Amino acid sequence: MGLAERSRAVRPAESVPVVRLRAGASERGSDLVVGEEPLEIRLGGEPLAVTMRTPVPGQDAELALGFALGEGIVEPDQVARISECRTEEGDGGVVDLLLRPGTRPAAGWQRNFYATSSCGICGKQSIDAVRASTAAVPDGPQVSVATVAAMPEALREQQQVFDRTGGLHAAALFTPAGELVAVREDVGRHNAVDKLVGRAAMDGLLPLHHHALMVSGRVSFEIVQKALAAGLPLVAAVSAPSSLAVRLARESNMTLVGFLREEGFNVYAGAERITGT
Amino acid sequence: MGLAERSRAVRPAESVPVVRLRAGASERGSDLVVGEEPLEIRLGGEPLAVTMRTPVPGQDAELALGFALGEGIVEPDQVARISECRTEEGDGGVVDLLLRPGTRPAAGWQRNFYATSSCGICGKQSIDAVRASTAAVPDGPQVSVATVAAMPEALREQQQVFDRTGGLHAAALFTPAGELVAVREDVGRHNAVDKLVGRAAMDGLLPLHHHALMVSGRVSFEIVQKALAAGLPLVAAVSAPSSLAVRLARESNMTLVGFLREEGFNVYAGAERITGT
Repeated sequence: MGLAERSRAVRPAESVPVVRLRAGASERGSDLVVGEEPLEIRLGGEPLAVTMRTPVPGQDAELALGFALGEGIVEPDQVARISECRTEEGDGGVVDLLLRPGTRPAAGWQRNFYATSSCGICGKQSIDAVRASTAAVPDGPQVSVATVAAMPEALREQQQVFDRTGGLHAAALFTPAGELVAVREDVGRHNAVDKLVGRAAMDGLLPLHHHALMVSGRVSFEIVQKALAAGLPLVAAVSAPSSLAVRLARESNMTLVGFLREEGFNVYAGAERITGT
Repeated sequence: MGLAERSRAVRPAESVPVVRLRAGASERGSDLVVGEEPLEIRLGGEPLAVTMRTPVPGQDAELALGFALGEGIVEPDQVARISECRTEEGDGGVVDLLLRPGTRPAAGWQRNFYATSSCGICGKQSIDAVRASTAAVPDGPQVSVATVAAMPEALREQQQVFDRTGGLHAAALFTPAGELVAVREDVGRHNAVDKLVGRAAMDGLLPLHHHALMVSGRVSFEIVQKALAAGLPLVAAVSAPSSLAVRLARESNMTLVGFLREEGFNVYAGAERITGT
């Protein structure tokens, strides 16, 4: 296998041997599991964070950019180039954010920021720092009940790896009319959001004041924080919110939806954006 | 409300206002959501990590101890006292691990360790450091198919907050005969495991070579790493494992079970510990 092929050896999903035990019967076979590998994010060559992520070609750059934006380390227009380093083995596991000459990242980033597979507050050195002073989102847009209720089905149609492995979190970006803009999947819930925000930044969509975020699982403080940093006015989750997620959404003029199903959902904050009730 | 009452104002679950939208109907009410608050873990008064956790009286100490043990920062016999700091508002959100005179934590802990609600590799400064050089677990014990299959029901019977909020991860410690030793719940999967390991350390049970760990959700690298640090030979998860979780379990002589149901389950590593197939 040549270098060119090796450099594609990243694996969103991986086949592993498995023994299936069912009602007294035992069967050997293989199973697809979600890929999980460490990624080191660098800023101008300096280590910024290590995160456990699902490797997908092209998405390491999105993840690195989305992470740095979400943590308030860089502004979208500061980033000149994002370099994905690859080794002979394929997945280099290192991505470097290169800033434009003369621009500087937020002070203190070298000591205060780290990441993991599902982490948005990593490395904040004190509790005060956990609640970043992100501005509240502006009023609007309006989103209909039917549009919100249709999001899970739209996401399911686009999910690529989940149905095969059962091990992925998904995040999706929608327009207020319910058009699906992008989907990202990852072993880490926060990574899926970071990838989505990084992609939106590359496409010049930030701040996302006229978009909605949907996540496949629960919604904790960190997800709301990341959404807020990207300017998202609506976050909808298939599963339960945490107390701090609700509080931060309320304080930030954000709409927070939980237990999202086709038949209905719960609104924990910002119900005025939901129309047609 | 006096100080004594205030100091009990930690909330594993919290009631929040909610608007329920169902098939055109809208209903205002309240909903219980899982508590999520930041906890600062200190080591001898120095900041070690900030984690988003579900506050439960007494469990901050378990979490701090389990985290520090799992990350290899301290040994069980090094800890002299664990102090939960509380303010007038109730939940102080700070816990301090005090070491015995003359003992020292692992070198470099001040720069390299941070935590979040679902994080086990936080702050590792390079990818090499992600895979801690934890020893493999010894052979044994044997656990029957029936014992493993009965774990989810035993866990459900003991879960205290999940049924009310739908927002918690749970971790449970079992004997090889299937006796449930302890259950911990948290908004963060890793916190639940840290609490359980911290409790086991306080009870003098480490290393847990004759116990099994069950977790309510997926199993990623970090969960296997934490289990390994505690000496656990068997990890069983209700949901899917990641590729790196499978690899680490295989390399460490650990038994890894996924998709655990009453009717059966998948074994991704160490099938020789499962009997009665």
